[in-house]
Amino acid sequence: MNNGNRQKPGFTYLRIARIIQHQIMDGTLRPGDRLLSLRTVCQEYGISQNTARSAYYYLEGKGLVEARPQSGYFVLHPLRPLPSLPHPTTPSPTACEGDSDVLVGQVYGTLGEPGCLPLSLATPAVELLPIARLNKGLAQATRSLSGSGVTYERVEGNEQLRRQIARWAFTMECSLAANEVITTSGCLNALSYCLMAVAARGDTIAMESPVSFGMLRLAQALGLRVLELPMHPQTGVDLDAYETALREGRVRASLLIPNFSNPLGSCMPDGHKREAVLLAERYGVPLIENDINGDVYFGAQRPRSCKTYDTSGIVLWCGSVSKTLAPGYRVGWVVPGRFHEQVLRMKLYHSISTVPLTEEVVARFLENGRYENHLRKLRRVLHANQTNFARAIAGQFPDGTRASHPQGGFVQWVELPRPIDTLALYHRALARGISFAPGRIFTLQNQYSNCLRLNYGLVWNEELENILLRLGQLARSRV
Amino acid sequence: MNNGNRQKPGFTYLRIARIIQHQIMDGTLRPGDRLLSLRTVCQEYGISQNTARSAYYYLEGKGLVEARPQSGYFVLHPLRPLPSLPHPTTPSPTACEGDSDVLVGQVYGTLGEPGCLPLSLATPAVELLPIARLNKGLAQATRSLSGSGVTYERVEGNEQLRRQIARWAFTMECSLAANEVITTSGCLNALSYCLMAVAARGDTIAMESPVSFGMLRLAQALGLRVLELPMHPQTGVDLDAYETALREGRVRASLLIPNFSNPLGSCMPDGHKREAVLLAERYGVPLIENDINGDVYFGAQRPRSCKTYDTSGIVLWCGSVSKTLAPGYRVGWVVPGRFHEQVLRMKLYHSISTVPLTEEVVARFLENGRYENHLRKLRRVLHANQTNFARAIAGQFPDGTRASHPQGGFVQWVELPRPIDTLALYHRALARGISFAPGRIFTLQNQYSNCLRLNYGLVWNEELENILLRLGQLARSRV
Repeated sequence: MNNGNRQKPGFTYLRIARIIQHQIMDGTLRPGDRLLSLRTVCQEYGISQNTARSAYYYLEGKGLVEARPQSGYFVLHPLRPLPSLPHPTTPSPTACEGDSDVLVGQVYGTLGEPGCLPLSLATPAVELLPIARLNKGLAQATRSLSGSGVTYERVEGNEQLRRQIARWAFTMECSLAANEVITTSGCLNALSYCLMAVAARGDTIAMESPVSFGMLRLAQALGLRVLELPMHPQTGVDLDAYETALREGRVRASLLIPNFSNPLGSCMPDGHKREAVLLAERYGVPLIENDINGDVYFGAQRPRSCKTYDTSGIVLWCGSVSKTLAPGYRVGWVVPGRFHEQVLRMKLYHSISTVPLTEEVVARFLENGRYENHLRKLRRVLHANQTNFARAIAGQFPDGTRASHPQGGFVQWVELPRPIDTLALYHRALARGISFAPGRIFTLQNQYSNCLRLNYGLVWNEELENILLRLGQLARSRV
Repeated sequence: MNNGNRQKPGFTYLRIARIIQHQIMDGTLRPGDRLLSLRTVCQEYGISQNTARSAYYYLEGKGLVEARPQSGYFVLHPLRPLPSLPHPTTPSPTACEGDSDVLVGQVYGTLGEPGCLPLSLATPAVELLPIARLNKGLAQATRSLSGSGVTYERVEGNEQLRRQIARWAFTMECSLAANEVITTSGCLNALSYCLMAVAARGDTIAMESPVSFGMLRLAQALGLRVLELPMHPQTGVDLDAYETALREGRVRASLLIPNFSNPLGSCMPDGHKREAVLLAERYGVPLIENDINGDVYFGAQRPRSCKTYDTSGIVLWCGSVSKTLAPGYRVGWVVPGRFHEQVLRMKLYHSISTVPLTEEVVARFLENGRYENHLRKLRRVLHANQTNFARAIAGQFPDGTRASHPQGGFVQWVELPRPIDTLALYHRALARGISFAPGRIFTLQNQYSNCLRLNYGLVWNEELENILLRLGQLARSRV
């Protein structure tokens, strides 16, 4: 497969691959079209065979083209039948308290238990994680940490990691200092501290709709009401609705996933982010930003974060490596802006310290470029998977099925034709060893009963293809 | 020093050492008295020189006797001038909300920062921890764990660890099953989940007085009121006051440290524990038991826990290895009885998963007996330290100073004569590089201003002896 990222700087192969990718995306090249021969590409661009081959490998890795023996490379991506985007969502503008726990418990009950294919999760399969290098990092950490990391870390967290996170924020054109960072036990833990720091029982929090059930349950556990905001499947939260909620003074804070939202997969354009931060500032409503997926983009560069546009400290930026490197390391962080002191206290009060060992491993990964290398591979695999999922949905799911086109992250949102109830489908699929996340668990309202979320952070193979085929058959058999 | 625990079963040396210890404690042997010569002991008891020597080494390790060159062993423990016990405490029977944060922040600000002797903490010095063995365990864990522990653990926690904790509970004559155990990120985190599971903002929780400021702050962070219960310095919480609070329906739950309370060092007699559990059952008030110090006893056997007497699931038993093995591993647990489901949800909602790697290391330590071996050494060191601290306090602190005689744990509570304000003393000591914990931070009421807490979980040496001497001088200069 592709070994392009081991090429020397310049990345000519990438430039060429992107030109071809663009031609495929805009329809200049259509499914079944033959690409120019490698020889021709070499002549046209004045490049070596190796570079040309790297470009084609890259496109193959992305699932856009395939090599046919003795014939060359052909466009694979069936552009036309790609499913339409889901409809923009229209949740009720009334804050809710609720309990979708029983169902969530069932879906989440598969966590850590083998045998059931975890299409229901939103995490990368273990095969996609750099285990050997992490183990090596762990051994190094026992040597580099004072006391081998068996003693408490200072409350703020590992110094190295905080410095590296600040440095890494450069990739989203954001200037941060190490002392602004507080480490946490994963991203959800960061969100938990933020919510506890800025809101109290009975307050209303604005969130996206559909929204990660983990965030819903956290709000519920803290006694918070949730105002669900309408969403566009590509550009994310509806800024008019967001402004209305803020202007009317109904919400104490908002909690958004601007980059590759979960479950919808939308990504707020940078202009929308700037606007959202301006509104947060104008109305004095803290914006908690869950940026756990920001590093997993399929485009040319990392999308910015709301934090990038934050000049007043109103944004509490949260992230982790749980979705990219090591879920079990429980390494996350928050840059809480003007709420630094309050969030730090929450960490101190509820857990004293995080785990210095795993923080040190992640710090070194960031420092020595291993994280970047790993991300490059991970993004390529995920992008190819996303394309394969879209193709499978287009080919196998009932006519009229719509699906998001996420440009990053791990999940795909699927909107089946109305009569289909994905909760019933869920139980039938589960009996066949397939676990997906039914749409109902992503809201406190009575919505999304015809939707589902799929995790494409898996190893693409024939078995997976068959599972999607069977899921499509199951869905069709109910229309 | 002592290598007695490597002897073969039977432990004759221990039996002999305890006889002598008893003679010292009851005054049959007095400070300065010469012990029988080793040769005499061998003859009298019909034992080997090695065994006799082991017994004396053991007593030496405990700080009860000293070897004088060419002269033999002499009783060291100055029984008479041992400080009197502190007075029983008499907090107001009114629940309080409060904020002792600024001061606590100062004291805790020394956490993780070198240069200041941490008499203020309640944790063992890094020199007392088995770092090399833990590192070895970590390497093994990356091999024994599926996916080397980089993926999420199931919500309940590492299976091995849960089994070993259940097995370990045998040491307190308690029968537990692995599936009753939920792992947490340290003991405070377990307490946090328990409080969130059984109480809501505005509720009142009964606690000991004085009480660990970590527990006070946690209650504060959760918006809970605290009813402080009177304490006896040796037998712990006053059961009459406890019953009154429960009977009057004023408290939603109680949170106690029955074994080696922090900061007082008291240990509830087993009969008191049984009574406390009966009362909790009778009035239906959950009893959250912080048993973090239970394994660090100086007597012949582990004190039981309240959980031992719990037949109805009203006790939420919490523990960790943060005070005995590896604070930075963040490995704790809770056996929540009838509140299992609620506590499990709190863990899931606030953090999804704990860290499988460090949990696996601790599980193996428990399994293969390394934990027990380590504890034996740790207890011996701490007991000797406690004796040394008591002696230093008796000799160097102002006349009229009282001090607890903890039979386990890490901390000593000191009650200075009334006019002395330990807050003023704290600031003067800090300027000299000595950080202790002033009494005021262990209550939400206006109490304990003449008290302080010392951490004896340190390496005893001349420097430490000098620091206690200087602290005593400082205290005396204020009378």
